[in-house]
Amino acid sequence: MTQKHTHTCAIAGMLNIFGDNWTWLVVREAFYGATRFKDFQRNTGISRNLLADRLSVLVDEGILEKTDIGTQGTRHAYVLTDKGRSLYPVLVAMTLWGNEHVYGPGREPILMIDTRTGLPVEAMRPVNSEGRKVAPENIAPVPGPGASRATVRRLEEAAES
Amino acid sequence: MTQKHTHTCAIAGMLNIFGDNWTWLVVREAFYGATRFKDFQRNTGISRNLLADRLSVLVDEGILEKTDIGTQGTRHAYVLTDKGRSLYPVLVAMTLWGNEHVYGPGREPILMIDTRTGLPVEAMRPVNSEGRKVAPENIAPVPGPGASRATVRRLEEAAES
Repeated sequence: MTQKHTHTCAIAGMLNIFGDNWTWLVVREAFYGATRFKDFQRNTGISRNLLADRLSVLVDEGILEKTDIGTQGTRHAYVLTDKGRSLYPVLVAMTLWGNEHVYGPGREPILMIDTRTGLPVEAMRPVNSEGRKVAPENIAPVPGPGASRATVRRLEEAAES
Repeated sequence: MTQKHTHTCAIAGMLNIFGDNWTWLVVREAFYGATRFKDFQRNTGISRNLLADRLSVLVDEGILEKTDIGTQGTRHAYVLTDKGRSLYPVLVAMTLWGNEHVYGPGREPILMIDTRTGLPVEAMRPVNSEGRKVAPENIAPVPGPGASRATVRRLEEAAES
């Protein structure tokens, strides 16, 4: 969407950075090992203009680092920063959901595997700050230190309903 | 984006369903407990037209179920299906990333907590099909049974580079 969301919300804040869906595909390619403009372009089908824009946003946001790898003339590589690499749980969770619900078992275009064992990565599991597993039904949103009044009110209403 | 991606890719397939970012906020609200049109509208700031469209897509895709809860006249509730609830790892991973990288510690608008212990949900961790934890650096994409030739070639190139 072009209109930015003004609600204080981590999901909206993240989506504001990502803009439209092309950005996700560019980040996906970076995770698959693409570093060069032409590879991002070929593997996503994005136009040159849009790709240049999205790479620029991702560099400005500190998700990709742009480095000059030219030995003769200028050639750039785009590599995930630590902040960029920390997006992997979102991308793996998206891949698992899409494999199961868009393609279905036996039709997955790409599987994520555990390279130590060759077994498929099957799920993303929440853990709490003591490292213990949390069941999905035991996850609840609560107002954080940066919550707006609207957020506090809305979560109170949700808890009462 | 309005143009749908034609690459076989679970992430692209999922994003094609979601369309633009408003859909994520509608799904977020469903996770927070919203069920009524007016609540989705108030909590996201989405226009009535767009909201009606997004709810319709989510119902068609089997992510939300629309039920008539009218006792006098027609009133509808929208509730997550199993397929919809299985989006929680994506939304929790987005929330954690946005809290850390958009807002930062001490400024999180909303925290996810483990209701059994009151501790914050800290991370989404990948597990393999035997239920064992997988370190992020040991996750790799491989062609699945539904891979196109382009996907196979691209992952081979990435592995060689």
